[in-house]
Order: sequence, then structure tokens, then C-alpha cells
Amino acid sequence: MTDQNFADRLSAAIRAKRTSTCVGIDPLYERLPADISERAGFDDESDNECALDAVREFCRAVIKIVAPLVPVVKINAAFFETYYGPGLEAYFDLVQEARSRGLIVIGDVKRGDVGHSSAAYAQAHLSHPSLRDADELMIPDAITVNPYFGLDGVKPFIDAARRDQKGVFVLVQTSNESAVNIQGAKLADGQTVAQSIARMVHEWSGDDGLIGSCGYSSIGAVVSPRDAASTAVLRSLMPRCFFLVPGFGAQGRDSGDVAPCFNPDGGGAIVTASRSVIYAYEEMKYIELYASEWEKCVERACRDFISAVASATKP
Amino acid sequence: MTDQNFADRLSAAIRAKRTSTCVGIDPLYERLPADISERAGFDDESDNECALDAVREFCRAVIKIVAPLVPVVKINAAFFETYYGPGLEAYFDLVQEARSRGLIVIGDVKRGDVGHSSAAYAQAHLSHPSLRDADELMIPDAITVNPYFGLDGVKPFIDAARRDQKGVFVLVQTSNESAVNIQGAKLADGQTVAQSIARMVHEWSGDDGLIGSCGYSSIGAVVSPRDAASTAVLRSLMPRCFFLVPGFGAQGRDSGDVAPCFNPDGGGAIVTASRSVIYAYEEMKYIELYASEWEKCVERACRDFISAVASATKP
Repeated sequence: MTDQNFADRLSAAIRAKRTSTCVGIDPLYERLPADISERAGFDDESDNECALDAVREFCRAVIKIVAPLVPVVKINAAFFETYYGPGLEAYFDLVQEARSRGLIVIGDVKRGDVGHSSAAYAQAHLSHPSLRDADELMIPDAITVNPYFGLDGVKPFIDAARRDQKGVFVLVQTSNESAVNIQGAKLADGQTVAQSIARMVHEWSGDDGLIGSCGYSSIGAVVSPRDAASTAVLRSLMPRCFFLVPGFGAQGRDSGDVAPCFNPDGGGAIVTASRSVIYAYEEMKYIELYASEWEKCVERACRDFISAVASATKP
Repeated sequence: MTDQNFADRLSAAIRAKRTSTCVGIDPLYERLPADISERAGFDDESDNECALDAVREFCRAVIKIVAPLVPVVKINAAFFETYYGPGLEAYFDLVQEARSRGLIVIGDVKRGDVGHSSAAYAQAHLSHPSLRDADELMIPDAITVNPYFGLDGVKPFIDAARRDQKGVFVLVQTSNESAVNIQGAKLADGQTVAQSIARMVHEWSGDDGLIGSCGYSSIGAVVSPRDAASTAVLRSLMPRCFFLVPGFGAQGRDSGDVAPCFNPDGGGAIVTASRSVIYAYEEMKYIELYASEWEKCVERACRDFISAVASATKP
């Protein structure tokens, strides 16, 4: 078990790789490279186990490709839960695989419930499992958490983060279109719901034992940029929170959009691309370069993503 | 696969059992009855598998006890995820066990994400698994869903509900204390965030193919009552939604509190009690009656719960 603050570990990993990027792993069997799905060896279409094996093989390969390039991967539990219990097992296997390769791993689980249930989710997804027959590396370094329950629904995750030197990214502004209907709603005091949650996250992030020597807190926020002005407001409301920035690439955000997520010193954010990197072998511009060599497509797309984000953080 | 609308099935189950109640299953190993945990046969404290077996045995017994009494059980995935993959497998086993006993089963998973991820969660937790090697009965009749992403994050669940005659309960007002900080925040137009979400849920609940012949929709809402006036507002905003009403018993709500969750005809709500029923053998009033016969304590507490709710629905 590491005894270093999560924000410090994240900062060190960003410094070491010289990029504030994260590859998101959202695998769908239907989109796997042909040479993996063809080898899957189905007896019939309903063979869940073979599909899961193929998904796992693909994800392991992607992790191996991106591990030397990016500091962080984010693994989305949704795409594993479709395979029920064995799927969740594969999710934890892949967390372990990525952590073993030195990556910081964010478990994108978006959990949240009333306190005693959140405590169970925190134990499952964030707590050091030393007293259970599980490997320490199978638990992610951080997870994403839904704030709809307010502080007492988030607190068990914060407590686990403090105790086990883990991180929490609270959803503040998400990347989907209808997010604006709730998160963007104006409150009576003039701020939006997202801004009001940002203030709460800022407060939570300052709790004892959470701020690393880098100045950032282990409690961060998921912030998908909309217009530059509103992103700047969120940035100023949560100065010591790392922003986990989704929506790059397939979801339409570019380097101009993500720039205001960074602090003036060029730090404080990690930009995530998922489908635009892991499915790069579906895109003509990479097929033209590498034909069916899908690993090369993914590697190149990852490098292109890193360059695009670098241009956002240049002064 | 049933081809009957979820709301109609729920209504029929409530009529058949003559009670609008649901037992919530939130099992913690530490609180299991001594005669189950003592038999668990640990080699050492970290033996996860034995603990999970004991939890499963307990839940099966509870389901068997309450199945003749209540129409609905709610199984909380959080308490199974602490056992990782095998835990999620146990969750689905218990859904199957409860459905096999004729219960309506609500999977209390509180999932929610951007659209393509919600689609994966919907496939895992709500969709008919006929094309995957899984039993139809292992998928719950309905699940709970978090609305923080807005419509496009909820829509995949609604679509699955429509297609496979399932139900969705959208979190509107939860039972925890700090819920009020976000859900109770006043918007510029004078309504609260919870009320604004209630309006959305009402709109979603009217979509084609969702309203049963009973007049209710397959899209319901999680509404934990606060004061009677605000509950009445939520009730009037969502007239055709079933309310799933948590917080009875251990979380402090009583029959007076839940009364305004019902429509004037005494229908439209299901009241849930979890810890006050399943851990009844910890309470002196039941120990005095049945000593260490824990099953009898649970059965009696379930009957007491049903009586308490009946008094809330009397005209």
C-alpha cells in the first residue's frame, strides 16, 4: 500500500509522462478489432464468456499500448457489468493489470447512495482490501462519485480516500447534452446547480489530510467544459481540485474547449479521451496509415491525443 | 418473459398481497444472525468467500420468510459489490431466487451515466438477457436510477423498460439528511431541484408504451417524505408515477410521514423498510418474544411493518 497522497501521486505521474491525459476504457464487444473477435471462438451468439474473454484481451492490449504514454487510465465499470459477476471480476483484473504497469487508475463507477450504502460502495471500490482476500492492486487509485445525495452520500468515499490515500472525482458538470437541464439550472441565488455543487466540492476538498504537498486535494471534480466563461467560473470555484475532463474526441470537445480547465500554471486537470483512442482502428485516417494493424492505430491516436492536449496547456 | 406492463404487474402484486410494502435487502456480514455467521466456517477473518456464502444464505432465508407477506423486495447492489465479482453474482442469484418465488424485484443499483454508458448499465441491470447466456429471472423487474445526467442519461433505462416490460424508479427525493442541500435547493423559478426533476419524471413517464391499464406508468420515482406539504407537491407533480418510499423504520419515517406519498385512492406508492425488518433479531422487543429464533423475529417485524403501512393508507 502506498502511503503517498493521491494528488501527489497523480502530480508525479503527470510530471513523469509530461502529459495531463487519461485514456478511457469503455469496451464494447461489437467494436473489437476483427482479429480479436474472430478468434473469440463462439459456439453461438449467446456465448457471454467468450465475448468477455475477447473484451478482456482487447483491454489488456490497449493498456499495454498506452501505459508508456499516458499517466492515467479510466476504466468504465458499465461496460463490464453487462457480463454480470464475471464482468465485474474482469473490471477488477484490468484495474490490477493497469496498476501493475505503473498507471494511475480511475474506476469510473459513478456510485452514490445514502450514507450506509455509499459506505458499502466505498469499501468495494475504493478501500484497501487488506482484510479481505483480495490484492491491493485490484482497487483503483480513485473513483468517480455522483453528488446527488449531498455530503452524507459522498462522505464515505472521502473518508476512504483519506484513510487509504485514494482519490475521488465528484461529478460536477458532465459531458452529455441534457446535463444542462439539471446541472445548468439556475438557483434562486443566481448560481447554477453545478456551481453550487462546485462550492461544496471545494469545501470537502479542504478537509484534514486530503491536500498533498503539491497543493492539490485528493478530492477532484468531473468537469466537462461548455463555454469558456462557465468553465473559468468552475475553475476559480475549485482551485485546489484536479479536474477530470471527459468529452474529448468522440464527444466533441477539442483543445480550445479544455484549456480553461487548467490552472494558470498549466496544471490541475487531466483530459480524458475514450472512444477516439481505443477505437482508432475504425477511423479512415488511421486505417490509411496502418491498415488492419489495430494496435498501431491505437498508439498513434493516443499520441495525437497527447499532442492535442499539449497545445491546450501551452502558455 | 412476461409481456405485461410493469405497472400493471406491480398493481396486481399489491392487490394480491393487500399491502403496498417492500422489504429492502441490505445485508452486512457483521450483522448476520449468530447461527449463520458461526456456521460460516472461517479459516481466518479475511475469508471473503465464506462471508459471502453466509450473506447469501441469510438473504435467501429472508426472501423465503417475506415472500408470502409482501409483493416486492428491493435488493441493494452496494452490499454485494463489497465481494467484488462473486458478490455481483450473488446479487443476481438472489434476484432470481426472489423472482422465482413470485416477488416483484427492484434492483437498487442507483446507476446513471452519459447515454452510451447508461445503455451498458441498462443492458446489464434491466434488459432481457435472451441473447446472452443468462436466465431471464436473474434480471430484476425494475431498478433505481440517478437523474443527475438529465434525460439522455436516463433514456436508455426508459427504453429498456419499454422494450422488456420493466420498470425504472428515478431518484427524486432521497431519505438522507444532506439530500436537502442539493435536492432541496431553490431554483430561480421558485421550485426546488427535486420538484424540477419530478416534472421531468412526470413527462418521461407519459412516453408511448409506458402507461399500463392500471393508469400508472412503468417509470416511477424514489420519494422519501420530508414534511407533508412538500410530499403532497411531489405527489401532485407525478400523479401517474409509483413512488418507491424509502426511509421507513431505521431511517426514521413513520406511517404519518408516508401517508401523503399515496394517491387519494390509497394507491401509487410502495413503502420500503430494510434494516428494521431484516435485522429485527437485534431488537429487544423481538428478542423478548422469540429469543434467538431470528427467522420469527424477521417475520414478526415484517408483519408489524405491513400493519404500520396499512394504517397510513386507511381513509
